[in-house]
Amino acid sequence: MTDETAMEIEFRSDVVVELIKSAASDADVLWAARVSTKGENSLAELEADPERSKGLINYLMRDRHGTPFEHSSMTFYVKAPIFVFREQMRHRTFSFNEESGRYRRLEPVFYVPGADRKLVQEGKPGKYVFVDGTPEQRKIVDEVTKESYRHAYRAYTEMLDAGIAREVARSVLPVGLYSSMYVTCNARALMNFLSLRVKREDAAFPSFPQREIEMVAELMEEEWAKLMPLTHAAFEANGRVCP
Amino acid sequence: MTDETAMEIEFRSDVVVELIKSAASDADVLWAARVSTKGENSLAELEADPERSKGLINYLMRDRHGTPFEHSSMTFYVKAPIFVFREQMRHRTFSFNEESGRYRRLEPVFYVPGADRKLVQEGKPGKYVFVDGTPEQRKIVDEVTKESYRHAYRAYTEMLDAGIAREVARSVLPVGLYSSMYVTCNARALMNFLSLRVKREDAAFPSFPQREIEMVAELMEEEWAKLMPLTHAAFEANGRVCP
Amino acid sequence: MTDETAMEIEFRSDVVVELIKSAASDADVLWAARVSTKGENSLAELEADPERSKGLINYLMRDRHGTPFEHSSMTFYVKAPIFVFREQMRHRTFSFNEESGRYRRLEPVFYVPGADRKLVQEGKPGKYVFVDGTPEQRKIVDEVTKESYRHAYRAYTEMLDAGIAREVARSVLPVGLYSSMYVTCNARALMNFLSLRVKREDAAFPSFPQREIEMVAELMEEEWAKLMPLTHAAFEANGRVCP
Amino acid sequence: MTDETAMEIEFRSDVVVELIKSAASDADVLWAARVSTKGENSLAELEADPERSKGLINYLMRDRHGTPFEHSSMTFYVKAPIFVFREQMRHRTFSFNEESGRYRRLEPVFYVPGADRKLVQEGKPGKYVFVDGTPEQRKIVDEVTKESYRHAYRAYTEMLDAGIAREVARSVLPVGLYSSMYVTCNARALMNFLSLRVKREDAAFPSFPQREIEMVAELMEEEWAKLMPLTHAAFEANGRVCP
Repeated sequence: MTDETAMEIEFRSDVVVELIKSAASDADVLWAARVSTKGENSLAELEADPERSKGLINYLMRDRHGTPFEHSSMTFYVKAPIFVFREQMRHRTFSFNEESGRYRRLEPVFYVPGADRKLVQEGKPGKYVFVDGTPEQRKIVDEVTKESYRHAYRAYTEMLDAGIAREVARSVLPVGLYSSMYVTCNARALMNFLSLRVKREDAAFPSFPQREIEMVAELMEEEWAKLMPLTHAAFEANGRVCP
Repeated sequence: MTDETAMEIEFRSDVVVELIKSAASDADVLWAARVSTKGENSLAELEADPERSKGLINYLMRDRHGTPFEHSSMTFYVKAPIFVFREQMRHRTFSFNEESGRYRRLEPVFYVPGADRKLVQEGKPGKYVFVDGTPEQRKIVDEVTKESYRHAYRAYTEMLDAGIAREVARSVLPVGLYSSMYVTCNARALMNFLSLRVKREDAAFPSFPQREIEMVAELMEEEWAKLMPLTHAAFEANGRVCP
Repeated sequence: MTDETAMEIEFRSDVVVELIKSAASDADVLWAARVSTKGENSLAELEADPERSKGLINYLMRDRHGTPFEHSSMTFYVKAPIFVFREQMRHRTFSFNEESGRYRRLEPVFYVPGADRKLVQEGKPGKYVFVDGTPEQRKIVDEVTKESYRHAYRAYTEMLDAGIAREVARSVLPVGLYSSMYVTCNARALMNFLSLRVKREDAAFPSFPQREIEMVAELMEEEWAKLMPLTHAAFEANGRVCP
Repeated sequence: MTDETAMEIEFRSDVVVELIKSAASDADVLWAARVSTKGENSLAELEADPERSKGLINYLMRDRHGTPFEHSSMTFYVKAPIFVFREQMRHRTFSFNEESGRYRRLEPVFYVPGADRKLVQEGKPGKYVFVDGTPEQRKIVDEVTKESYRHAYRAYTEMLDAGIAREVARSVLPVGLYSSMYVTCNARALMNFLSLRVKREDAAFPSFPQREIEMVAELMEEEWAKLMPLTHAAFEANGRVCP
């Protein structure tokens, strides 16, 4: 274990979300909904009447006609700590392909809370409130996590250097290690994810996501809102309830 | 009930499959697979080495690494008899929006077997063989189904004319009535569908689809093969087993 | 085609739901929830404190912690018209096995609306109101559907008698024909089904199910409420929103 | 951080699988299959003819009629390292409730490879062979992992002692930490899991599971084989292919 390796270690406090490709637009919702009711309107007609389109999407959202929102697809590249992926992969309507610790040597990139991450939790389960923490607490987190990450990665490379299989050596790597994956979902699945993983005062239902998965969710929402503005607005207007 | 209505009745023997939109290419598979193993190759690199791409896709298919095939999306418009939709909607990885008999008056379009549809079934369950049927049998099917469809549609319109709700009146409509729907799926879900709904001598597993859903499946396969030729070829080369 | 066959035809206005087997209790929810928080409490402890159990289930429902409700299983036998199954099979979290019209001759049992089924629909889509219908309308429905069913079944048997394959002959059978199936689901999937397929004034979200699928849903709910009374009460108390 | 805490650390090399409850028997498969073909046979009849039952289950497995295997349910308690759960939770047909690192302080129980765990990997991706490793390598793994785990847990408790939120402090905990969960699945979902997560020379398709998830899978298979012996035998006899 040389100092060089230790020095290569990267600490980050952000997450990365990139929209890789999509087939997702408000028109998809309209077409799917209209096959149920009036058949094949031309896209031209729909685009000619934005108010009616808006009204129809709002009606579908409000009355929880969810299936028209499924005929869309977005693929994201996400880079985030393992503890975030552990939560995100519980969403069984998503498709995932994650970097493998069995097939490749994992890079030393680790998560440390940023300056705006509240570190202290108060209150009871279900009613937690997070507060900033003292400068002293912030210092402890910063030093202890970094030192612990360095130590763990050193153990990992020491085993790899001794010829141990990657899948065995990785046991010592912490859940604060960054991983990366491809995630594909449709707009309905995404709305379900957002309703649970973004905390908003104006939501019809409460949610208590860990801040780090919320950071991923917020970035996904931002991309989605650009692709399907009417659907996103209807989601907001209806208490962020997944239809 | 006037003769006019009876005369508007349409009989068809085909099914319609149109690719409405897609985000589906062999490159999607390669990208998703490479996030697992080597990270972010550029699309340029992949395209520069078609043999390696072909090999990787074939390896994924053979060893049943199924998830890389999920980062794709195809939306089809399908028009087929209700008895076909009854089978197709059992595929729970697809998204569907079908014409509603509650919200609209259903049009009189009915399925009659075409000249090449084998009408007679011989053998035991699991080993059925279909044979042509005599000209007399063909005549019976043609006449009896058409007459029965006309009679049923007349009953439907008679109830509608009397002010009965569409959802009540439709009870008399036969499963040979055409319906239409939007179907969205990814390549992996599609391969599962094809493995069960297309009968092929060279398949690793037998399947005994009803001919009419096979007609839908064949048309979907044709569109898909154009979008993802390497994936399709690997599916064929590996016994048409869904990875 | 003899008169005998015609006379064997059965008309019904009900649906059948029988609970075949189950592994579903409120304790399942409590155990699953407590693995998250406090580990392995004994069932004895839970049973000793019903108020705490009730509170925990209510908290899970209210804050939409849905997964603890999935560790349960109920298998129902359902007999209902095809048009009901067409809707029920859209629920992709259920498991289904339905009587096959390809493997067996279908029995002549048909649905006719009962005396309390409202026959006339007024108002606009999304705001339909159903009203009784006049005696004359009721008479028309009764006569026209029965006559149409008899005619269709005669066509079916005529083709079968001529040696036509069952899967071909069935095209003429109406969606008012009864079918039967096994349905398996967990409590969470069932709550989603009930939230959409039972119309209740006190529900947080509106739903507009067709009466016949609502009849199935009501009977399923009745069985479920007996198995998981605390969960059912919490579902009711929280606006019948699926967690 | 006192020595006491360090001494409480537990190292294990096994996984725990307990069947908590089940509604799963071969009769469930038979009943579901027979609703498709012949309707309601009594359980008595089925039990009276074991050879026919065996034949029917084998036929369903061979011809990939998968749905009759879904009307069953098994709930397991599983205790295994996080890196195992990371793989197991990719199976989207399962239901999971896992111990939460946000709601409770995680216990210091860590995985170290047992004496029979092969530590060294040779060959190319897709064709890996695992070999024992030298005594020296074994010693390195044992010492390095234990020391690294101890160090990480000390960092975790140090942050907790300083009042840092559990969800923040857990970042440093390694994927070799044991977690526990409830897992519910049906027999079909379980067969898919087993086909991918147990390596068997006689399987129709190759699989390359990491040994630790295979240990979980083997124990689940053992429990399942006792509940559904005919189904398990048919799975074995048909190349362990999920129907």
